[in-house]
Amino acid sequence: MARKDFLDIVSLDRAEITHLLDQAVPFKDLFTRSVKKVPALKGKTVLMLFYEPSTRTLSSFEVAAKRLSADVTIFDVPRSSVSKGESVRDTIDTLQAMRADYIVVRHRLAGQPAAIARQTNASVINAGDGAHAHPTQALLDAFTFREVYPEMEGRKVVIMGDILHSRVARSTSTIFEKLGVEVAFCGPGSLVPQTRFRRFTNYDEAMKWGPDAIYLLRVQKERQDAPFFPSDREYHSVFGITEERLKRISDKGVYVMHPGPINRGVELCDGVLDYERCLISQQVENGIAARMAVLFGLKPKVS
Amino acid sequence: MARKDFLDIVSLDRAEITHLLDQAVPFKDLFTRSVKKVPALKGKTVLMLFYEPSTRTLSSFEVAAKRLSADVTIFDVPRSSVSKGESVRDTIDTLQAMRADYIVVRHRLAGQPAAIARQTNASVINAGDGAHAHPTQALLDAFTFREVYPEMEGRKVVIMGDILHSRVARSTSTIFEKLGVEVAFCGPGSLVPQTRFRRFTNYDEAMKWGPDAIYLLRVQKERQDAPFFPSDREYHSVFGITEERLKRISDKGVYVMHPGPINRGVELCDGVLDYERCLISQQVENGIAARMAVLFGLKPKVS
Amino acid sequence: MARKDFLDIVSLDRAEITHLLDQAVPFKDLFTRSVKKVPALKGKTVLMLFYEPSTRTLSSFEVAAKRLSADVTIFDVPRSSVSKGESVRDTIDTLQAMRADYIVVRHRLAGQPAAIARQTNASVINAGDGAHAHPTQALLDAFTFREVYPEMEGRKVVIMGDILHSRVARSTSTIFEKLGVEVAFCGPGSLVPQTRFRRFTNYDEAMKWGPDAIYLLRVQKERQDAPFFPSDREYHSVFGITEERLKRISDKGVYVMHPGPINRGVELCDGVLDYERCLISQQVENGIAARMAVLFGLKPKVS
Repeated sequence: MARKDFLDIVSLDRAEITHLLDQAVPFKDLFTRSVKKVPALKGKTVLMLFYEPSTRTLSSFEVAAKRLSADVTIFDVPRSSVSKGESVRDTIDTLQAMRADYIVVRHRLAGQPAAIARQTNASVINAGDGAHAHPTQALLDAFTFREVYPEMEGRKVVIMGDILHSRVARSTSTIFEKLGVEVAFCGPGSLVPQTRFRRFTNYDEAMKWGPDAIYLLRVQKERQDAPFFPSDREYHSVFGITEERLKRISDKGVYVMHPGPINRGVELCDGVLDYERCLISQQVENGIAARMAVLFGLKPKVS
Repeated sequence: MARKDFLDIVSLDRAEITHLLDQAVPFKDLFTRSVKKVPALKGKTVLMLFYEPSTRTLSSFEVAAKRLSADVTIFDVPRSSVSKGESVRDTIDTLQAMRADYIVVRHRLAGQPAAIARQTNASVINAGDGAHAHPTQALLDAFTFREVYPEMEGRKVVIMGDILHSRVARSTSTIFEKLGVEVAFCGPGSLVPQTRFRRFTNYDEAMKWGPDAIYLLRVQKERQDAPFFPSDREYHSVFGITEERLKRISDKGVYVMHPGPINRGVELCDGVLDYERCLISQQVENGIAARMAVLFGLKPKVS
Repeated sequence: MARKDFLDIVSLDRAEITHLLDQAVPFKDLFTRSVKKVPALKGKTVLMLFYEPSTRTLSSFEVAAKRLSADVTIFDVPRSSVSKGESVRDTIDTLQAMRADYIVVRHRLAGQPAAIARQTNASVINAGDGAHAHPTQALLDAFTFREVYPEMEGRKVVIMGDILHSRVARSTSTIFEKLGVEVAFCGPGSLVPQTRFRRFTNYDEAMKWGPDAIYLLRVQKERQDAPFFPSDREYHSVFGITEERLKRISDKGVYVMHPGPINRGVELCDGVLDYERCLISQQVENGIAARMAVLFGLKPKVS
């Protein structure tokens, strides 16, 4: 893989995705060893540039980079000259001049990481941009699904929730599609756009389709100007995994996934966390392995 | 020592404490060498999880972990999904899934680190929980006292201030007791509970008892809803080390300790900092050595 | 060079400056290698103590220290006990006790880094103090100028803007003077003090003097209680590099420098960033090399 940047899933072909998934396997194996570290990126500089706060994703990338022996510097955007009115473009010129090898970017504007990638020799990794893409999330999702279904072809996944505003839905549905997994979207009518994917607006109908896994999207309470649902309780009863639905899911052996952080009592009831086919923690662990594979696989222009 | 966690002093026996104190000695020696570092924890991940801010304690643990060659990641609680309503329990599931080897926790609720420890395979170190415990502070205090009195048995220490609300008072009195040091509490009547320790409510009477060291507790101005004293000046005149009291202390060769950060003119006058038997800076240095000993001595379940 | 601290340019002689500039050369060469790192400061502790936020300068020092293999700890001043009323003096006692080898300080009060340096055995590096000095900025400026004019003697530089309040103007003019470069100040009359340097209050007159480079100072919008100029547009038209002035500068081959972050449309128009003799990015890169040279060259009292 000779890519400089990792910006979305759409531009990757199946061979590249499979190569990245394969590469993540030995990195995950590393986590059970006493020394969870390889010298692959020793002497490289990874800069974290998070315009939207996200402690989890940032920490996941940070741990991934350190387990590759890279030096990590967190560019503290909230306290930076950005607040003095500096443009993203000028910030990137600075990071480029600092000879960063990798820049991990999260930004609330779709396309910002791509614009940054064109401007710098560093490898740019999109850690989430607006409603556009979250490709490392998609990679870890596919990796996790492949662990339980090594033959992915023909398997079915329902992605549940606010599809319209979700970068996770976009990236994760795309990677599943490229790997031969059938995807359906399910959620409130106004939040499930017409796409090439199967579309449900009713939980029970979606389940009748026979999915192997339900992928619950996070209800982004903090992002919504106006809530799409009158209450958390109502969301839970209509699209959440209630205790009652959990029983049916369990009977059928359906897996449950979620990108985190979860809202208990909204997307899922407490019982889901103890359900043996709940993959949420596995996703977190695989996130580090997947991000190591991405960092390891990219080729900055100069370094 | 085969412990997974380091949560309080109460559950340690004298042999364990002595072992930790002995282990801190070579780590402290390291600080005078050119390379202040050993490879003991290379490839281990230490996660800092501070629900209460404390730059000093956090930096002390961070430096300790780095001098053991561990990789340190600060989980930025104030900006994290905690502010999105995530529970501590779900945050810990995430850190567990990230395969942290050590989690250093500060929380304003007593018992939270213990609850976390039960939930994770990582070694959990209590960096202060509510009014319950601050065991690494106690360890560094005992280490410092032992440096000046290698035979601790039968020595006497007065702990001075708001005993009732102090986790330092609890942990430090307990470690001294286990090591055979006699402890007395002294402070305003309403803030010194009846315990198995000697109790004073008057500075002069406490000093007549003949202590080898006075341990001044920090006046926690920022924590008190209603101040216990009408003014800093009054606290200073009643329970602080004034210039006049310093002379008497100096005549008797009494040592002065304080967990920091100090309030000049409240717990102590400026002169104390220049007093040759003031141990406050020594406590800070020993804090790093003691924390290295703790990290080095614990055994995470998997790693 | 046997200095403990790096506090200002005034106290350095030409030989020392030249030695530091020479030392920065191999460090800069390192940035084009695959492993951008040398083990020079392995096992040393560098503490960042920024009382004024500055993500760029902090990151530059952080990257520099890590490329020397030092361990970096950022002492989080905004969340620290400073906010609990601790004095700088007591904070430094703490850092000293932690056996920091290097303390990098930024403070809004002139002279604070020097006061700190007297108090600690650690090497103190001034990362900007009030309107007094910013010596690592000056070093990187001289390094950058020397890259385009290896023979600096007799060259001319105009420093443009609010000279009166600028620590950059003070340090950078001093280093140029010591290296034989002629310096002139140019800016609004009330903001250009009478000094030993040539003084202009008119852009065109300054340019008639025939400078080899214009050094634009940042308009510190956030620091001014009352703005010195009615508007950004007016500043731009009077002292900024407009598109029209850029043409004349380009014809004469004059270099443009700026300490960053830039204000587009104020100190300079967009075109300047694409101008081949614009040295701004080069300054950022050289900042890391220059700071490596400083860290490498200092001798802490104990370490």
